[in-house]
Amino acid sequence: MNFLNIQYPIIQAPMLGVTTPEMVAAVSNAGALGSLPVGALSPDDTRALIKKTKALTNKPFAVNLFAHQIPESIDWDEVKRMQDFLKKVCENNHLQADLSQTAFTHYSYRDQIAVLIEEQVPIVSFTFGILDDADIQKLKEHNTVLIGTATSTKEAVYLQAHGIDAVTAQGYEAGGHRGTFLYEDTIPSIGTMALVQNVTDAVTIPVIAAGGIMTSTSIKAALELGAQGVQLGSVFLRSTESKASASYKDAVRDSKDTDTVVTKSLTGRWARGIYNTLIASIENSHIAICPYPIQNSVTRSIRLEADKQNKKELGVLWAGQYASKAKAISSAEIVRELVQI
Amino acid sequence: MNFLNIQYPIIQAPMLGVTTPEMVAAVSNAGALGSLPVGALSPDDTRALIKKTKALTNKPFAVNLFAHQIPESIDWDEVKRMQDFLKKVCENNHLQADLSQTAFTHYSYRDQIAVLIEEQVPIVSFTFGILDDADIQKLKEHNTVLIGTATSTKEAVYLQAHGIDAVTAQGYEAGGHRGTFLYEDTIPSIGTMALVQNVTDAVTIPVIAAGGIMTSTSIKAALELGAQGVQLGSVFLRSTESKASASYKDAVRDSKDTDTVVTKSLTGRWARGIYNTLIASIENSHIAICPYPIQNSVTRSIRLEADKQNKKELGVLWAGQYASKAKAISSAEIVRELVQI
Repeated sequence: MNFLNIQYPIIQAPMLGVTTPEMVAAVSNAGALGSLPVGALSPDDTRALIKKTKALTNKPFAVNLFAHQIPESIDWDEVKRMQDFLKKVCENNHLQADLSQTAFTHYSYRDQIAVLIEEQVPIVSFTFGILDDADIQKLKEHNTVLIGTATSTKEAVYLQAHGIDAVTAQGYEAGGHRGTFLYEDTIPSIGTMALVQNVTDAVTIPVIAAGGIMTSTSIKAALELGAQGVQLGSVFLRSTESKASASYKDAVRDSKDTDTVVTKSLTGRWARGIYNTLIASIENSHIAICPYPIQNSVTRSIRLEADKQNKKELGVLWAGQYASKAKAISSAEIVRELVQI
Repeated sequence: MNFLNIQYPIIQAPMLGVTTPEMVAAVSNAGALGSLPVGALSPDDTRALIKKTKALTNKPFAVNLFAHQIPESIDWDEVKRMQDFLKKVCENNHLQADLSQTAFTHYSYRDQIAVLIEEQVPIVSFTFGILDDADIQKLKEHNTVLIGTATSTKEAVYLQAHGIDAVTAQGYEAGGHRGTFLYEDTIPSIGTMALVQNVTDAVTIPVIAAGGIMTSTSIKAALELGAQGVQLGSVFLRSTESKASASYKDAVRDSKDTDTVVTKSLTGRWARGIYNTLIASIENSHIAICPYPIQNSVTRSIRLEADKQNKKELGVLWAGQYASKAKAISSAEIVRELVQI
């Protein structure tokens, strides 16, 4: 992918809560493209992470934004009901977590654009929607390459029509949040094999395949399908530079192909993760799930505490449908294995 | 795939109601492997179709069975409720269909085994479960090659452990019925990209990739993933030899990647087809769906009448997530295009 100025057409997927500046730098230094996730972070935190990554590599890396709208108001009755419910789940499972928040801070990507421009970030990828036309314009004036995320042909065509430079076609196999943004109640569930072909038929901008890609042979397969590059997340979950907890890493290692589900229960947005007690409790209760990012803010303290105590049954275990293939080696070694012929 | 004695490692998927002896023979004559679907047919009909196919080709072809258990009894109250509901759907949509059946005939694959042996069928594939050990033994004594269908690693391992010779890994993209048989309430929804890799890691028998494969490049991609062959259904839907109605063929041509759903509403078993009024009416009503194959028997007259009248909104439009790629050309031409380098 010449337009990204990288040696191999391989992108490390941005994984908020897992990816570190060390991972991003190691991947970029190895000739692929690291992606620094800064979705929903404050401008100051965003700047600090970018600076930290720059200190570790002079190769290009991408910064990834969440392009959703921030809700204008919060239904605190709904939040309270969810907090009360989750308190019981924690009690039943012997986890101490603070579920008494009465305020949340939610940053918009709009607050981060100025930082990205000041820091001269060469590549900005985004998910959960599309940047405003004015922001797209601003970034383009600074020669920033823009990569959007699509889960259907319609979304890919929409991104191209709005001037985005490349599109990540996120197949149903992919772990973590689905980038879906043009659908209300349902989400497209198109497998990588079908999605990459459908999308490459429909757009002329470069297509980056994502979902179920964990090996050098699956990279070759994705390129064969017409993709110009690939994006891999799960393969880095157990890497030395991953911030995932020990129990999360073990759950990934032990996961079977049927162990993940796509659920709204943890954050209010559809995402694929390993099914556990936390997901089961929320889904089986049929309690109303708060919209994103409010549900994410409510469950945050459980997640952090579960990670600390290595309680995978109450953690958030984003993973794709072939995540078990991930190895506990360095990110540089992972890239080296991925580019083996 | 030398064990199948064919020139190209390409199998035409058995599609009951679409596949004809002419399609099977054309595919086998072109150097790939045709599959004749005989699931749920009487022994006499089974024999007649095999003989008709043999008259059109002297190349090997597979015969495909449904390996499910026949329900021991029928809940006629449930059937009556479904019939009454569907009568209203038909009235609302101006379709005359007979929904007054008071008896159904359901044949088991067990009634067909003797015919397959007498007709010296070289390859028997099956779905919805596994043949009885005694039947497996009997077919093996006659040197029949057995191919099972798996939608997860667990099912593939199960088939191998029971002496099956090869396994079709049916990814979530695939059109028509899901082969799922080891799960009760949910079905695995593993994309082809992830499933083929998971399965090839877990079994030593040959793996045949299915789901989302419509072109020579996607065949190469599937083989790259570790499959030894591929099975394609949707690509033959619009072929000259297809029995699909004109409205079905048009719906396939016009389908987008988000247009199909996996539903139990039409037959009582999960299957992927193009969403239409019939599916929407049944799903939105939340009426209890009869178990397979009873629901299939109940909806049969609607399907036949809708086909006759070219009313796609009341038809059964099985199709995969990239079915729009299907061309209205002969099955022999389709195979020729698939093997183009």
